[in-house]
Amino acid sequence: MSHSTQKAMQAAIQTAIVGVTGYAGAELLRLLVHHPRLDGKPPILAGRIEPDQASRGGIPLGEIHPSLIDSRGTGNLRLRQFDWQLFEDLGVEVLFLATPHEYSRAAVPEARRRGIRVIDLSGAWRLDSSAHRAVYAFEDEGSTDALAMQAEAVYGMPELHRHAIHQACLIANPGCYATAAILALKPLLAAGIVDPACGIVCDAKSGVSGAGKAPTAKTHFMHAADNLSAYGVFSHRHTGELLEQLNIDETAITFTPHLLPIPRGILATSYVRFREPQSQAKIDSIYREFYLSSPMVRLHNHHLPQIQHSVRTSYCDIGAQVASDGHRAVLVSCLDNLLKGAAGQAVQNLNVMMGWAEAEGLE
Amino acid sequence: MSHSTQKAMQAAIQTAIVGVTGYAGAELLRLLVHHPRLDGKPPILAGRIEPDQASRGGIPLGEIHPSLIDSRGTGNLRLRQFDWQLFEDLGVEVLFLATPHEYSRAAVPEARRRGIRVIDLSGAWRLDSSAHRAVYAFEDEGSTDALAMQAEAVYGMPELHRHAIHQACLIANPGCYATAAILALKPLLAAGIVDPACGIVCDAKSGVSGAGKAPTAKTHFMHAADNLSAYGVFSHRHTGELLEQLNIDETAITFTPHLLPIPRGILATSYVRFREPQSQAKIDSIYREFYLSSPMVRLHNHHLPQIQHSVRTSYCDIGAQVASDGHRAVLVSCLDNLLKGAAGQAVQNLNVMMGWAEAEGLE
Amino acid sequence: MSHSTQKAMQAAIQTAIVGVTGYAGAELLRLLVHHPRLDGKPPILAGRIEPDQASRGGIPLGEIHPSLIDSRGTGNLRLRQFDWQLFEDLGVEVLFLATPHEYSRAAVPEARRRGIRVIDLSGAWRLDSSAHRAVYAFEDEGSTDALAMQAEAVYGMPELHRHAIHQACLIANPGCYATAAILALKPLLAAGIVDPACGIVCDAKSGVSGAGKAPTAKTHFMHAADNLSAYGVFSHRHTGELLEQLNIDETAITFTPHLLPIPRGILATSYVRFREPQSQAKIDSIYREFYLSSPMVRLHNHHLPQIQHSVRTSYCDIGAQVASDGHRAVLVSCLDNLLKGAAGQAVQNLNVMMGWAEAEGLE
Amino acid sequence: MSHSTQKAMQAAIQTAIVGVTGYAGAELLRLLVHHPRLDGKPPILAGRIEPDQASRGGIPLGEIHPSLIDSRGTGNLRLRQFDWQLFEDLGVEVLFLATPHEYSRAAVPEARRRGIRVIDLSGAWRLDSSAHRAVYAFEDEGSTDALAMQAEAVYGMPELHRHAIHQACLIANPGCYATAAILALKPLLAAGIVDPACGIVCDAKSGVSGAGKAPTAKTHFMHAADNLSAYGVFSHRHTGELLEQLNIDETAITFTPHLLPIPRGILATSYVRFREPQSQAKIDSIYREFYLSSPMVRLHNHHLPQIQHSVRTSYCDIGAQVASDGHRAVLVSCLDNLLKGAAGQAVQNLNVMMGWAEAEGLE
Repeated sequence: MSHSTQKAMQAAIQTAIVGVTGYAGAELLRLLVHHPRLDGKPPILAGRIEPDQASRGGIPLGEIHPSLIDSRGTGNLRLRQFDWQLFEDLGVEVLFLATPHEYSRAAVPEARRRGIRVIDLSGAWRLDSSAHRAVYAFEDEGSTDALAMQAEAVYGMPELHRHAIHQACLIANPGCYATAAILALKPLLAAGIVDPACGIVCDAKSGVSGAGKAPTAKTHFMHAADNLSAYGVFSHRHTGELLEQLNIDETAITFTPHLLPIPRGILATSYVRFREPQSQAKIDSIYREFYLSSPMVRLHNHHLPQIQHSVRTSYCDIGAQVASDGHRAVLVSCLDNLLKGAAGQAVQNLNVMMGWAEAEGLE
Repeated sequence: MSHSTQKAMQAAIQTAIVGVTGYAGAELLRLLVHHPRLDGKPPILAGRIEPDQASRGGIPLGEIHPSLIDSRGTGNLRLRQFDWQLFEDLGVEVLFLATPHEYSRAAVPEARRRGIRVIDLSGAWRLDSSAHRAVYAFEDEGSTDALAMQAEAVYGMPELHRHAIHQACLIANPGCYATAAILALKPLLAAGIVDPACGIVCDAKSGVSGAGKAPTAKTHFMHAADNLSAYGVFSHRHTGELLEQLNIDETAITFTPHLLPIPRGILATSYVRFREPQSQAKIDSIYREFYLSSPMVRLHNHHLPQIQHSVRTSYCDIGAQVASDGHRAVLVSCLDNLLKGAAGQAVQNLNVMMGWAEAEGLE
Repeated sequence: MSHSTQKAMQAAIQTAIVGVTGYAGAELLRLLVHHPRLDGKPPILAGRIEPDQASRGGIPLGEIHPSLIDSRGTGNLRLRQFDWQLFEDLGVEVLFLATPHEYSRAAVPEARRRGIRVIDLSGAWRLDSSAHRAVYAFEDEGSTDALAMQAEAVYGMPELHRHAIHQACLIANPGCYATAAILALKPLLAAGIVDPACGIVCDAKSGVSGAGKAPTAKTHFMHAADNLSAYGVFSHRHTGELLEQLNIDETAITFTPHLLPIPRGILATSYVRFREPQSQAKIDSIYREFYLSSPMVRLHNHHLPQIQHSVRTSYCDIGAQVASDGHRAVLVSCLDNLLKGAAGQAVQNLNVMMGWAEAEGLE
Repeated sequence: MSHSTQKAMQAAIQTAIVGVTGYAGAELLRLLVHHPRLDGKPPILAGRIEPDQASRGGIPLGEIHPSLIDSRGTGNLRLRQFDWQLFEDLGVEVLFLATPHEYSRAAVPEARRRGIRVIDLSGAWRLDSSAHRAVYAFEDEGSTDALAMQAEAVYGMPELHRHAIHQACLIANPGCYATAAILALKPLLAAGIVDPACGIVCDAKSGVSGAGKAPTAKTHFMHAADNLSAYGVFSHRHTGELLEQLNIDETAITFTPHLLPIPRGILATSYVRFREPQSQAKIDSIYREFYLSSPMVRLHNHHLPQIQHSVRTSYCDIGAQVASDGHRAVLVSCLDNLLKGAAGQAVQNLNVMMGWAEAEGLE
């Protein structure tokens, strides 16, 4: 019996997605319907819909995302009215939330009470420190539910927390910028070679899908096209994730996001200074060792990564170049903000949580 | 008699352009034909053309740049075979070179011998230090002509060298990236408040016109569109200009250019750390004072500049944001690489050299 | 005394713009502040603003359109609270409306009562036939005011109605698509050589600025970028202008607009069949004669026009190619939807109305 | 035993690709390595490479197409020196040619002599009529080999020639534009309702990948971006395919391609006039019946298709809108020029040839 048959013969788990109408939600659905371990069990799709749509059994996905119409019937899947009873009736075991963080703060405690494991793509449960959480101004900050969930939540970056994710019931899927920055910087910081006195700079650039589906002045084609702008200088929400995961002080890093005139993709250019001069070979080997067992990181030796090669993959591509003086390095990391920066990493977390191969369903 | 009439009555000088077929050359022509001081005297256009084209009196500009066809006859101007005698016959006083640097190295000494003043848009004469010039590998490095020209050349950034430009006969028009970086960083460095131990970072992004008109793998739409890539890490040619104009050591700054998927425009994000904490008000006042008499710099207080607002202008837009800890600042500078980064700055240099209003013909 | 001085000595007229916050309004302002005949008299800018803004004397233009900040002070012009008394006090003679058509329907009768001439960029007064107007569902259809204005309005396409425009007090500035289509088709239809039985096809494509400044699902970067979509099939509002100006029946032409992933520019590809075979030379000469005295039309003989060469000019570029069988022709016309398709044509109409050179201030 | 296991147990066939360095070749490789019927047997990749590269066993694919590097090892596949013996040694049964048509003309007769079935993505064997072939100026036109191959070749559009493809040994994969135009027009022409006297118009727009990977003035970002241009008016090579497959005369259709500023995707807007008035319902039913068993055509009833929904799929999306007068229809068809317009259709042809499910490996 082939390996793939064995897999198929295990009972597939039942997943659900809330937030399938957004960009990340659509990518998540695309990944889950093609996931070899979930064969035949597409995710339940739920959200807030109009009563007359609910009475007709929900909205066919093809009306919301025409590009998802295919001959396996993905376009016929229905977005139904959200209802915990529905999830119970259908035996939902893992719930993906591709929702605003306020929604996740409210929904996750209930999901956990019902024994549903959650992979939350929002920023609701990513931060340990209340000081860092302040930027979100959570209304339930300090409540019993919130404290319990925060204690339970695991930061869903398998490259750093593989073991904890395997045992987790609530996974806080990382921010897209944070993923690009942390994966580039962590190996060098962990190696203890970066000079803490000289600050780290992370200059990041993201495509417009990162700004969400709501039509705004910022996402208007006339503003985004033929343009580049910095925003959130010294104040972007993902900064807290950087500080916590890299274990550094706020003044130790300056993170500046920019809006790129492309639909998707992030490129982060990070700048570090070393305590002692380092060779290119040494830096290369630090990355190689750090990511030895990480299938979703691709290391680039000869060429720096570029957005085009990472987009529509679930990889994070990393390249590092050391100055000839040995004191400085430029790190370039690229990923697709909707995949390794959102839905792809969510599926990677599912794989780790379930004990499946980490890259399964991600190519 | 109106002021504009008085101007018109002074005899207009005769200019010439070599290199009008390129992007910067076309912008230069556009500026010169509309320049109020050159009314009625369009520049002579010269280059290498085919003998049969030369025998027909040259190539009408409209065939090379259809968008330059207008009802004043700009499209009928002719690109003629280059010839020093032609320039002498027509009384060319100021020659603009929008040519490769090798060409400028050869042509400038001859132009100067003939008493023609030169504004050179290439990198041929920008650098004082032979170490910095090494990146260009000039064939005539160290020759008598080259040494004489280097001694004579003035770095054509009016905001820094207004007085010298006014008296110059050879102006080395700055590089586009260098202009964006230097104008953002110089006021703070001149104020002596930047910590030299912690390195400066300049993360710059440029539209594709900066890569020139030659079709290459890099300028192919399929590579440039929907993409972002870093290049020239630790090795870009404009680094020498930064070091000389900012008067800092090579290790004190890390400059990384990126290729943006837009036709034109540069945004440079620069990062500095201060010796002592600084207030936003202090930094704002430093910029205001430094650029008090500089009409081609626009300072932004409330919003950071973005590429879209600078493109198709000859301004450099600058905004600075100080961290609440007072130790760090992010500087954003934007310009049009073909205008303030090339042709616009060249005309600004012409204005300063001739004693005209610095912004004349630049709006 | 030079020609330009004589012009300057005539008293400049006072213009006003309502709707400067939009894309076409901003282009209009840019043209008017640089118009040689309006030297020193920038347009009055009026609209609906907040009371506290009004109490501070209005909103500086530079806050609305940062790219309009220049050293002549355009950024300091103020958008003030609209008020007819203000216009009277300041002696407004010509009012440009870059407003929604509902606004124009209400404002124009009052402006005319006050003796102010109007150039209206909206669709309010373009159509003679009530059947064609039905698509706009004007609330005041058939009112005395409306009938009077309709009788007075002149379709503002100087290439067709130069004489009437010169004498007009209310000019209905044409639609952007309509301008591209009519200017391409009119010469051949006027020559009587197009076969009426075989329908004409006009397949038009426009950049996103044509869809207006409001953020919508359609203007979201994620929808517009990397995409092309047809819309308004058999139902676009500009169809009525085509029918009236070309003097043909509804079934004689099929007009289909498409949304292009570019900021600005229209290319219309029109297809006609001839009654009798025609030569390329004959067609070329028909166009040449028709546009002999039309400075804002550029005819292309050897190459078809493309959007890039027309954008940021006020020209309409036209090229025609006849099939070797002589029975069919493909006509390509290009323009900038914000210039020849809006603000540029408005200024061209001003020039004609005032008896100035038609191209003045348009290069 | 599951269905998918049964498939896997049939011996997979050995395929090969010549031309994997191009855009269509890369997409073809991506499809073939993920094709469930070819599990474990990636295609042999061959081409002209440098001797030193050949001596090292060829070039790793990851160096040519970095985005193809994945954890299944696709990036490690090697492009080897082309050699018929190699194909024989490795038992190549089906050869895909993603090569220039001149190459295919020379290679196909030899492949057939060696008993290798060929799916040729070039224009070498698509045309029956020597008049239509004239546009290619084949050097071997009329040779014995060429005549034999032409007789054997089947036009590889399964929606029209499913039965012949199943039995074919040489499949001429259709042109990208031709696929979009033919699939939109064929149902109506086959139904005999289109008026032949009034010409058909097909106005088609394609992304830049259709122009190939060679850097040219046309594919330069500065030309392609923010632009739209018509080309090949009355002379595009795909016209012959339209005429033959639609069985109409040259004068009956006018086909005009345009270059869109997007990487990939085609939208064709086709215009027909009917002999007798038709209802929307009638037209809808004609399409539904025609494509009843065609899994790679998606029909759109309520919304017209747009490029964004077709790109990165192997579908052709078709929508038709009938005028209220019943005499005219606008047909919009969209596809990805590299997939349904090239590699996707090639795999669809492989599926039909092998008797596999037509959509297999295409989602």
